[in-house]
Amino acid sequence: MIEVLRLSHRPFRDKRITTHCALVARAFNADSIVYSGQKDSKLESTIAKTAANFGGKFSISYQKDPIAYIKSRKAANYLIIHLTVYGMPIQDKISSIRNKDCLIVIGSEKVPPEVYELADFNISITSQPHSEVAALAIFLHEYYQGKQLKKQFTMARSEIIPQEKGKLVNSKLYK
Amino acid sequence: MIEVLRLSHRPFRDKRITTHCALVARAFNADSIVYSGQKDSKLESTIAKTAANFGGKFSISYQKDPIAYIKSRKAANYLIIHLTVYGMPIQDKISSIRNKDCLIVIGSEKVPPEVYELADFNISITSQPHSEVAALAIFLHEYYQGKQLKKQFTMARSEIIPQEKGKLVNSKLYK
Repeated sequence: MIEVLRLSHRPFRDKRITTHCALVARAFNADSIVYSGQKDSKLESTIAKTAANFGGKFSISYQKDPIAYIKSRKAANYLIIHLTVYGMPIQDKISSIRNKDCLIVIGSEKVPPEVYELADFNISITSQPHSEVAALAIFLHEYYQGKQLKKQFTMARSEIIPQEKGKLVNSKLYK
Repeated sequence: MIEVLRLSHRPFRDKRITTHCALVARAFNADSIVYSGQKDSKLESTIAKTAANFGGKFSISYQKDPIAYIKSRKAANYLIIHLTVYGMPIQDKISSIRNKDCLIVIGSEKVPPEVYELADFNISITSQPHSEVAALAIFLHEYYQGKQLKKQFTMARSEIIPQEKGKLVNSKLYK
């Protein structure tokens, strides 16, 4: 199982970034995303609608206490992976992480020091500032060695069919 | 040369997404980003400050007419790569793209049909909806076959030193 934990969501400031993180988690074969901070029912419905339309199993849920949640996942033998620009390079660590259950923690501007301590791996995707959306995508891409690019989503109502030019969407494949 | 063109920027709605796209472009070894839509001097100064602080050569600039800009780059023998969920899978096309000068076009919600026509390659990173930030990151990661993760940035004032736990930043490495 691969779960993503997005810390300290703020509906006004972070709406699109958290939405992008959740969509990346789903598209790149994570099983679920959990978020803390402010509860945001609009975020939850956007993600649930996308999952219902494009298929597969993916869920989003809210956790008030992210530290307790990290501890509970650690107790359940998940590896705690904290993605941070200050961490160790992914290319040096990913082979120790693959094929294990993971909780991937992605932060906001201020991550509590306890998260660094609880993490089994603090992992950086380059040591340059960029984006938690990109960091999550690259982490999952490396975790799955690119195989997630070919994932088939079951029970989809809409399916995009790749085209050299233009757009083709098959709809109502499944009722 | 690798340039990124971000279409139809709206400072209010897209501020953080465009900032993330620009930071990913820089961190993942693109040379520059150009954006169209509304001019946004705050965006430009954020990116310029990051580049000055963390080193390397990277620039951001504004173009009023993105279609004319795409045509000019096409005339200069750049491959025009349009990242879109409707395009052909990256894994089937990337070997025809590597080692060539590219203009990578990333859209907003409505991309004019002309962009699909002008593109030498319409490329998808999965056929699932997710994020232009993630799509750009995965494209560059595949273009460089992961080597951009080890890029050294010259003339940096601040350098983050990877740590198993905690944070370490070396400052004023260069005056």
